[in-house]
Amino acid sequence: MQTLNVELASRSYPIYIGRHLLSRAELILPHLKRKQVAIVTNTTVAPLYLDKFSETLAEAGVKVTPIILPDGEAYKNSETLNKIYDALLENHCERSTTLIALGGGVIGDLTGYAAATFLRGVPFIQIPTTLLSQVDSSVGGKTGINHPLGKNMIGAFYQPQAVLADIDTLQTLPPREFSAGLAEVVKYGLIRDADFFDWLETNIEKLMALDEAVLSYAIYRSCQNKAEVVARDEHENGERALLNLGHTFGHAIENAMGYGVWLHGEAVAAGTMMAADLSRRMGWLSHQEVERIHALLTKAKLPLDAPQLGVEKYLALMQLDKKVADGKIRLILQQGIGKSVITSDYNIEKLRETLAL
Amino acid sequence: MQTLNVELASRSYPIYIGRHLLSRAELILPHLKRKQVAIVTNTTVAPLYLDKFSETLAEAGVKVTPIILPDGEAYKNSETLNKIYDALLENHCERSTTLIALGGGVIGDLTGYAAATFLRGVPFIQIPTTLLSQVDSSVGGKTGINHPLGKNMIGAFYQPQAVLADIDTLQTLPPREFSAGLAEVVKYGLIRDADFFDWLETNIEKLMALDEAVLSYAIYRSCQNKAEVVARDEHENGERALLNLGHTFGHAIENAMGYGVWLHGEAVAAGTMMAADLSRRMGWLSHQEVERIHALLTKAKLPLDAPQLGVEKYLALMQLDKKVADGKIRLILQQGIGKSVITSDYNIEKLRETLAL
Repeated sequence: MQTLNVELASRSYPIYIGRHLLSRAELILPHLKRKQVAIVTNTTVAPLYLDKFSETLAEAGVKVTPIILPDGEAYKNSETLNKIYDALLENHCERSTTLIALGGGVIGDLTGYAAATFLRGVPFIQIPTTLLSQVDSSVGGKTGINHPLGKNMIGAFYQPQAVLADIDTLQTLPPREFSAGLAEVVKYGLIRDADFFDWLETNIEKLMALDEAVLSYAIYRSCQNKAEVVARDEHENGERALLNLGHTFGHAIENAMGYGVWLHGEAVAAGTMMAADLSRRMGWLSHQEVERIHALLTKAKLPLDAPQLGVEKYLALMQLDKKVADGKIRLILQQGIGKSVITSDYNIEKLRETLAL
Repeated sequence: MQTLNVELASRSYPIYIGRHLLSRAELILPHLKRKQVAIVTNTTVAPLYLDKFSETLAEAGVKVTPIILPDGEAYKNSETLNKIYDALLENHCERSTTLIALGGGVIGDLTGYAAATFLRGVPFIQIPTTLLSQVDSSVGGKTGINHPLGKNMIGAFYQPQAVLADIDTLQTLPPREFSAGLAEVVKYGLIRDADFFDWLETNIEKLMALDEAVLSYAIYRSCQNKAEVVARDEHENGERALLNLGHTFGHAIENAMGYGVWLHGEAVAAGTMMAADLSRRMGWLSHQEVERIHALLTKAKLPLDAPQLGVEKYLALMQLDKKVADGKIRLILQQGIGKSVITSDYNIEKLRETLAL
C-alpha cells in the first residue's frame, strides 16, 4: 500500500492506494468521530462490495447504515440527494456520524455534497471504485450535483477525512469505464507532467491489461499531480482550473446528449481533442503533438470525435461553464505537452472552426 | 451609523447598523467582485424596499437581477431553493455575481445557502429587514433550509461579505414579528450578558416604542454578543451552542405546530421559559430569576405557554436536534441570569415534568 498526503492545513488527509483495502478496518477507524457510519453506494456496487465491507466494519464494532441509490449520472440530482438526507434523518444520524462514499464519481460527488450540507457538515470518507474517481473526483474536495441547466452547478468545496483507492475494485469495472478514467490520467500528463505523458505512451498497453504495478503507479502519480494542484489552489481561484482541460467542451457534450449517454471521461477525451485542435489553430501546439495525444487516447479506447451539435449550440452550452467571467468563456488550452494555460485570449473565429468540425 | 466587525480571519466582515442604509450604495460597492448582483427577497418586502434599493444600486452602475420568493417559514425548503438556482442560471449569474438577501431570517438563510452552494460558492451580502434577523440570523454564517423531518437540517456555515442592518425597515415590521425578534435579544442577556439583561428590564418600554437610540443600542449589543461567540467558535464545536438557548424546545414546537404557525422567536420565547423551568427544577435558577425572565418576555408581548404536545412527542421531536450526541439530548440551561451551560447532565424525570406542564 502507498500513502499520499493532500496538504491542506487543518483539512489535510491521506490517500491510501493498494490492494485489499476494503478488508482493512484499521484504515477507517482512526478517521471516525464515533463508531457510526452511513455507507452510500449504488445498485451496481452494492452486490459486489457492500456486504464484505460492512462486515469488516461491523467486526470492528462500527454501526453501519447502508444507503443504496440507483446507478448513473442521470441520478446525480436533487431528488437523489434528498433520498440520502431522508435516510440519514430516518436512521437518526448525527453530526458525529461519518458518511462513506462507496462507488464511482457520482456516488462520491453526491455523498460528499450530502456530507457538506447535512446538519451543516458531517465527516466523510471516499472509497472510489472506478478509475476515474480514484485518479480524479475523489481527491480535492469538489462535491455537488447537476442541475437541468448544467453539470455540477450546485455544490461545495468539502474535504474528506481520507480516501481509500482499492485497485482490486478495478477488476470488476467495465472496460468502457476504465477507458473513461484514463482520459483524466492522460490529462495530468498534458497539463503539467510531460514525463508522465511519456511514461503513459510507453506503458499504455500494460495499463490497459490492468498490470498491477503499472496501474498502481498511474493512480499514485495522478493523485500526486492532483494533490499538488489542489494544495496550492483549493477553491479554484487560479491554477486549479487547469484540471478542467477538455471539460468545458466535455460538459457541453454531456449536457447536449443527456447526462450518462456519454461517460464523463469519454466527453472529456473528445473535449481534450477539441482543446488540442484549437491550441493548434492558435499556433500553440504542433500537428505532431496533436497526433501524439490522439494516438495515446486512441490506444486508451476513447471516442475522440465530438458530436456535431452545431457551433451556436456548443457556444450556448459552454456559456454555462463555471469558469465564465464577464460573459467570456475561459478555456484550458495547450502550449505544448505538459504545459497548459487558462485563457480567454483566444481567437473566437478559430474556436468556431474547432466547434464546426 | 455604527460599524461592528465580526473577526473570522480571512472571513471577517463588517456589520453596519443605522438609518437610511438602503440609500447608501457606497456601503455595498466595496464588497462586490463585479457590478452584478442578484437581490433575493419576498413578496412582502419587495413592494416596500426593492425598487428603492435597486435604484440605489443601478445608479451606481450595478446590474441587478431581482428574485422574488413567496413569504414565510413554510417556504424555507428545497423547492424554493431550486427557484433561486433556476433564476440564477437563467440570468447567467457567475461566480463573481454577488447575492444580496433582502428580507428576514428565512430570506437570509435561503440566500446564504444558495450562495454557499451555487457554483460551489459565490459571495453574498445580508440586508436583514426584521429585528430577529438583524440581531441573530444574519450574523454568524449559519445558512440552510428545513427538511420535512426537522428544521435547518440541511445547510452550510458560510459567511457574508457584509451585513447592513437598516433600522428604518423595522418601522414597517408587524408588532408580532418585532416581539419575536426580542426573544433573541433577551437571549444574549440570559446566556452571557447580565448587564444587558438589566438594561433591557429598564428600557423595554422604550424598545417596544421603537425609540431610535434604544433600538440601535439593543441591536448593536446583540450583534456584539453574537460576533464574540461566533469569533471564538465559528462551527459550533462548543460555546456557540449557547446561542441555542430555548431553541431545542422551540424547534419541537415549530415542527409540531407546522412551520410558520408559531413564529421562530415566539417558539424560542416559550422554549426559553421551559429551559428556565428545568433549570429551576435542577436547582440552578431561583424562582425569582424565573419570574424576572417571565416578566421581561411578557412585556415584550411574547407567548410564554408552550403547546401541550405530550411528553413523548416533545422528546421524539427534540431527539432530531443537531446537538444530540450519542443519542442524548443536550440542552442549554441557565445557572443564573447571564450564565448558561450546554449540558446533557440533567435529570430526565425533571425534563419530563417540564414537558408535561
